[in-house]
Amino acid sequence: MNPVSTPTSSYQPGIHCIVDIYSTSHYLTKSLVLKELWDKLIEELELQKVGEVYHQFENGGFTAVVCLTESHLSIHTWPEYGYATFDIFLSNYQQVNDKKGDLIVQRTTEHLEAFKVNLQKLRR
Amino acid sequence: MNPVSTPTSSYQPGIHCIVDIYSTSHYLTKSLVLKELWDKLIEELELQKVGEVYHQFENGGFTAVVCLTESHLSIHTWPEYGYATFDIFLSNYQQVNDKKGDLIVQRTTEHLEAFKVNLQKLRR
Repeated sequence: MNPVSTPTSSYQPGIHCIVDIYSTSHYLTKSLVLKELWDKLIEELELQKVGEVYHQFENGGFTAVVCLTESHLSIHTWPEYGYATFDIFLSNYQQVNDKKGDLIVQRTTEHLEAFKVNLQKLRR
Repeated sequence: MNPVSTPTSSYQPGIHCIVDIYSTSHYLTKSLVLKELWDKLIEELELQKVGEVYHQFENGGFTAVVCLTESHLSIHTWPEYGYATFDIFLSNYQQVNDKKGDLIVQRTTEHLEAFKVNLQKLRR
């Protein structure tokens, strides 16, 4: 039996913000401070977290992924190179999440004190 | 003090494979079978997992993120729409991971029995 009741191959409800930033901020070494920000935003924006991993490396960088019912957030920092990447992917078929994605990008970029930002958006 | 010893703003070592697939496979509902595949690939390719979340939804879909020292893997499935998205992001300054990324994309796409694949690659 084909489980697909409503094929909608032309409709992609999600917004994926792909952000690469350059920064000399000490916040590139502070995973728990970033976690505080993201937890606050998840609550404010009424997103639903179903799990997370925050991992601090010995050399100062960190890597983290947050699993949401609306997809995921991720971040990887290299303070030794003044570089970090993060992704905000919000997708569901119940509502458009574009404004929420923009807000998380803005607040995260400000938090990391980026002096150069490369932002790409994909519809998925 | 500026923590950046070697600014390399022109060098981006990572490869991010962004994959959207269409499939009517029942594997879009099987998070633990996907986990078996990814665990095997992580071991084969000598990647290092530092944490993971696999979350099965009641309606059959699942969402998962795997945190690696080399960045992350993620997947979100909507079997009710015959659709899934997954990301393979491998980045570090010690080695080029492009071939490993390609292999995970190929094996995951085959596993999910995709009949249509949209693959984008970003250098980050």
